[in-house]
Amino acid sequence: MNQLLHLPLREIPARIRQRQLSVSDLIQATLQQIERTEPDVQAWVEIDRDGALREAERLDRLAARGTVLPLHGVPVGLKDVIDVAGLPTRAGFAPLADHPAQADAAIVARLRELGAVVLGKTHTTQLAFADPAPTRNPWAPDRTPGGSSSGSAAAVAARQSPLTVGTQTAGSVVRPAAYCGVVGFKPSLDWFPLDGVIPLAWSLDHLGIFTRSVEDAAYAYVALCAHQRLEVPLATEPPRLFLLVDFLELAEPEVAAHLQDVARRFREAGARIEERRLPVDVHLLLAVHHVIMLSEMGALHQQMLERVPDAYGPRLRSAVEVGQLVPAGALLHARRLRRRLSTLLDSFLSQVDAVILPTASGPAPDRSTTGDRRFQAVWTLLGTPALSLPSGLTHDGLPLATQLVARFGHDRHLLHVAAWCERILPSLPPPPLA
Amino acid sequence: MNQLLHLPLREIPARIRQRQLSVSDLIQATLQQIERTEPDVQAWVEIDRDGALREAERLDRLAARGTVLPLHGVPVGLKDVIDVAGLPTRAGFAPLADHPAQADAAIVARLRELGAVVLGKTHTTQLAFADPAPTRNPWAPDRTPGGSSSGSAAAVAARQSPLTVGTQTAGSVVRPAAYCGVVGFKPSLDWFPLDGVIPLAWSLDHLGIFTRSVEDAAYAYVALCAHQRLEVPLATEPPRLFLLVDFLELAEPEVAAHLQDVARRFREAGARIEERRLPVDVHLLLAVHHVIMLSEMGALHQQMLERVPDAYGPRLRSAVEVGQLVPAGALLHARRLRRRLSTLLDSFLSQVDAVILPTASGPAPDRSTTGDRRFQAVWTLLGTPALSLPSGLTHDGLPLATQLVARFGHDRHLLHVAAWCERILPSLPPPPLA
Repeated sequence: MNQLLHLPLREIPARIRQRQLSVSDLIQATLQQIERTEPDVQAWVEIDRDGALREAERLDRLAARGTVLPLHGVPVGLKDVIDVAGLPTRAGFAPLADHPAQADAAIVARLRELGAVVLGKTHTTQLAFADPAPTRNPWAPDRTPGGSSSGSAAAVAARQSPLTVGTQTAGSVVRPAAYCGVVGFKPSLDWFPLDGVIPLAWSLDHLGIFTRSVEDAAYAYVALCAHQRLEVPLATEPPRLFLLVDFLELAEPEVAAHLQDVARRFREAGARIEERRLPVDVHLLLAVHHVIMLSEMGALHQQMLERVPDAYGPRLRSAVEVGQLVPAGALLHARRLRRRLSTLLDSFLSQVDAVILPTASGPAPDRSTTGDRRFQAVWTLLGTPALSLPSGLTHDGLPLATQLVARFGHDRHLLHVAAWCERILPSLPPPPLA
Repeated sequence: MNQLLHLPLREIPARIRQRQLSVSDLIQATLQQIERTEPDVQAWVEIDRDGALREAERLDRLAARGTVLPLHGVPVGLKDVIDVAGLPTRAGFAPLADHPAQADAAIVARLRELGAVVLGKTHTTQLAFADPAPTRNPWAPDRTPGGSSSGSAAAVAARQSPLTVGTQTAGSVVRPAAYCGVVGFKPSLDWFPLDGVIPLAWSLDHLGIFTRSVEDAAYAYVALCAHQRLEVPLATEPPRLFLLVDFLELAEPEVAAHLQDVARRFREAGARIEERRLPVDVHLLLAVHHVIMLSEMGALHQQMLERVPDAYGPRLRSAVEVGQLVPAGALLHARRLRRRLSTLLDSFLSQVDAVILPTASGPAPDRSTTGDRRFQAVWTLLGTPALSLPSGLTHDGLPLATQLVARFGHDRHLLHVAAWCERILPSLPPPPLA
């Protein structure tokens, strides 16, 4: 594999500034890797080869004039629910296939402003819900890459792009990241405007990013947010953590044992870790998430489901139909519970730097499903930042992952903690399909 | 009638400071007026005679030691959905009759802190909805005082108290103020915490106040909010106003003609007034209000309606039952519309100092109803400040009123505009039952 495909994000503009790298060479290498691996992985709906090469040339001219931007030349893939001007936002939903977006989504405009090169659109489950995309897991083609940001996770795992963007309404960033053995970071709710992103559930939708390392995630996050100081490399203090017993009990035995092993390694490196239970039943949090998500989906899709019922996959259709049965009173109670539980959980999370739990109950299942959302949806409901860190392999070679969660708004602190954790764990090799 | 009952609010602490008035004398006079008029008016559920006299003595001792508070000695009545420690909050609902409140509502605690003397609890329609209270209109005993803050409005009109507190979820402050010929002021949504107030619909409930004049309303409002400078007497610049044609078309002819006459007087005094239409159909605003209010009422009363169905009046019960039929999707659409329409209306309202319209479609109807909420509910939905100003009498001697509305948050500016308007209009005499 071309060595350029292994560069950390911040090395890309640095080498361009030092005239050791051209954007065109990097994009050429990236497109070759996609060409080589895409028949097996199927991460992309559409690749804008010409547009990417043209933009690479423009960025090279810009660099020659002395201007190098924070993400100068960084290739990026966008989940196909995110508008890129001139390309259709298909969202895995046939009625949307023929309409090119008029304008870039806010996140795409920001990425371009930072010098990133848009490669194209990555596969999503239908409208970011649960009907599987065609994408395969780069670790094992019979397994799901997870969903709904299936292509975005698989593309980073297959070294097709060092940075991709996805969305999470239940577990759609951190779960596919876990299944594909890459870093997935969902910052706090409303960290970035959702303009130009097809909604799934208004009050739960988050944007998130996929990278190969925590440092890359931090670099991209800080650039996107326009924080002035790029605090990478990240700090090294051993953190204080809670290991969440509730989720160990719900996890498959191999996953639970893995998390105990991860906690042991962290302890040996100086972390202070207590096993703790959440102050509230996980199933209450999941029920509240479920009522809110389904109600909002029901409202969003009301007219569309009447117009084109046959375009709907069975899982999306059923969720929308259930959502339309929810009475307003149930939604109001769920929203009030969400507020109350958020306050309760915030005071729980405030006792430590982060809590750790498995990102998912098991490794990637077969491709009939996109996996189990229970371990991720809790944090989406609360809007807290969550990061999935690859932390090992199962006995048959599938990625395992540790999820780190911090208080609402403490996104940067979570990245520091995650960087410390990442240094303790052995790094995964590239997957077989990369 | 005792001259003490005509003192403007700010004169009360001023005279106490100058040792020209004792709180005990004022409370004695007030209790005598209640005793004299209450058999006809029936504004009060409970009068805490002993408590009020004890508090008056305490405040007189405090004044003797040199401490005079901003509402020192001001008698106040609380709508019976507002907790006063030691008294039951009956809310016109039998199951609540026997439970004395453990603590004062936030607004009551604040009033006491400012030196006000709690006289007792005023009648409300059942749980602040639409099943009439026993209170009569002091201008005509066969007419409704309006609702839901029926007793609070009638008590101020009958000179039983210079200040009372009510709540508004549709039109429950400004409408009874209009019917009873007093000033009713509903500041912007969330101007004061609702702790200790029985909710009717969480996102629409407002506290509001009744007084005999705009200056009294401003004096009490500023004291309650702890604004540092008491800007009374109020400014005198002629305002720029829109007269809202939509509501003139919906009003009874006598009311529409009255508003045109009011506008003519304002113009002659220098105000610049244009006739304008709202940028959105009044009926859309009313439908959005209706869906949100009924949904929230349905959620709030779900368990109670199952437990004690027979305690419910027919109007409240039917509204709660309708609310339980609303699907979550309809509520979500209504909430999104509310946000969108609020932005639209805010930019409309930003073009002038205030808009004017009738407070109600007609004068007080008979006692089978509490009146028409359409002219008030629009502003409750938007959370904008609204003030009802007595502006005349019908040919058979019932009060007519002009409603002034300003942008969200511009409560104090609205008080200034209303004070200017009040000076142009002839003041009403006390009503026959006072």
